[in-house]
Amino acid sequence: MFPEAFPGPLGVSLIGTAWKESARWALETLDIRNFSSDKRGFLDDTPAGGGPGQVLKADVIAQALDSIELNDRPLVYMSARGRPLTQAKVKEWATRPGLIVLCGRFEGVDQRVLDSRGFEEISVGDAVLAGGEAAAMVTIEAVVRLIPGVLGAQASLDNESFEDGLLEQPQFTRPRTFEGLDIPEVLLNGDHKKAAKWRQEQREATTKERRPDLWAAYLSKSQLKGK
Amino acid sequence: MFPEAFPGPLGVSLIGTAWKESARWALETLDIRNFSSDKRGFLDDTPAGGGPGQVLKADVIAQALDSIELNDRPLVYMSARGRPLTQAKVKEWATRPGLIVLCGRFEGVDQRVLDSRGFEEISVGDAVLAGGEAAAMVTIEAVVRLIPGVLGAQASLDNESFEDGLLEQPQFTRPRTFEGLDIPEVLLNGDHKKAAKWRQEQREATTKERRPDLWAAYLSKSQLKGK
Repeated sequence: MFPEAFPGPLGVSLIGTAWKESARWALETLDIRNFSSDKRGFLDDTPAGGGPGQVLKADVIAQALDSIELNDRPLVYMSARGRPLTQAKVKEWATRPGLIVLCGRFEGVDQRVLDSRGFEEISVGDAVLAGGEAAAMVTIEAVVRLIPGVLGAQASLDNESFEDGLLEQPQFTRPRTFEGLDIPEVLLNGDHKKAAKWRQEQREATTKERRPDLWAAYLSKSQLKGK
Repeated sequence: MFPEAFPGPLGVSLIGTAWKESARWALETLDIRNFSSDKRGFLDDTPAGGGPGQVLKADVIAQALDSIELNDRPLVYMSARGRPLTQAKVKEWATRPGLIVLCGRFEGVDQRVLDSRGFEEISVGDAVLAGGEAAAMVTIEAVVRLIPGVLGAQASLDNESFEDGLLEQPQFTRPRTFEGLDIPEVLLNGDHKKAAKWRQEQREATTKERRPDLWAAYLSKSQLKGK
């Protein structure tokens, strides 16, 4: 309903250049307002069984989908009810011919079109949004940056948060002292083995503290590997 | 570094109107490129201890912060290393005089400026982004929609996903049959008590299936209440 919200972050920096200059990917928006089957152009109706707000009609979404080539692209619906976005999903989608992302509004979309057309419901962050557009940008940006050539020479795709189930270590750069805080000594003395050990310890400690869910998953995976 | 990514979704629909027409909130962007202390305008440098990519310099972020009135606004840094965004945090931020959101790039920001200035590190979705802008939009939109008057008469802020720790039930609206799928009978026969029971069952089943983490938290909270 709001194609003018795009491209936003998808139009800037290397992601934007890869689209507008080197055509490594492309963004197309479709305004579902154009697919009302109602003479008055209504897109939404009251929820069955009562309750506040409005629900986007199944036939509107279906007609919007029928107007485009699906071309084996996964169908994703951004929804607070969804399963959380993960880097594993993002990596899989990056190997596909594209992605079709449905942005809801109001109380959401009639569940039947999600079921009959096979949408995957995905959430980003445990917070409620006014619409799916900002969440769609998060999803699309995460996928597009994995397309070969998009990040170019600046790519550092290994050793990232979520790659092996741990968050990243903190980062530091010059100057050596900033507002009374020093760069940790272990990163300055040239002992690469000690620095690597420190990074691993930091990653484990941060994950344990901030993401007990990821930490538990990491531990059970490590045990399976016999670590 | 990319103020032109904004406003994106923050400029449309009721959120956009509440900013541009009724001034219930306002978005201001600050380009950190203007705060380099380096004659050549550099913003970033190589990571201490080695590793790929570049790190945003602490002094650049500090000078950008020093150029504005903080005015008791919480400082938030969008980061894959952060604690997940939650509706509880969003609700708390909505009561504050505003929010200052730092969008990183490259491998991230020198940890010392985050520590010395008291940034809270927040993630949205377990996926890696090229920059913090899309995640910032998710965060800001979630907060702004809770500001009184922003959603106007369309507000239906109760009974939402995450409000009581459960995801929402699926939604349905007319027509009664769509692509061979019927609206559940319980929502059509006018028995509000049965409909309410069905909604609660759906919310519990969906949460259990899609969000075992939220489900476990909900169960332990229910037990504490002696339910």
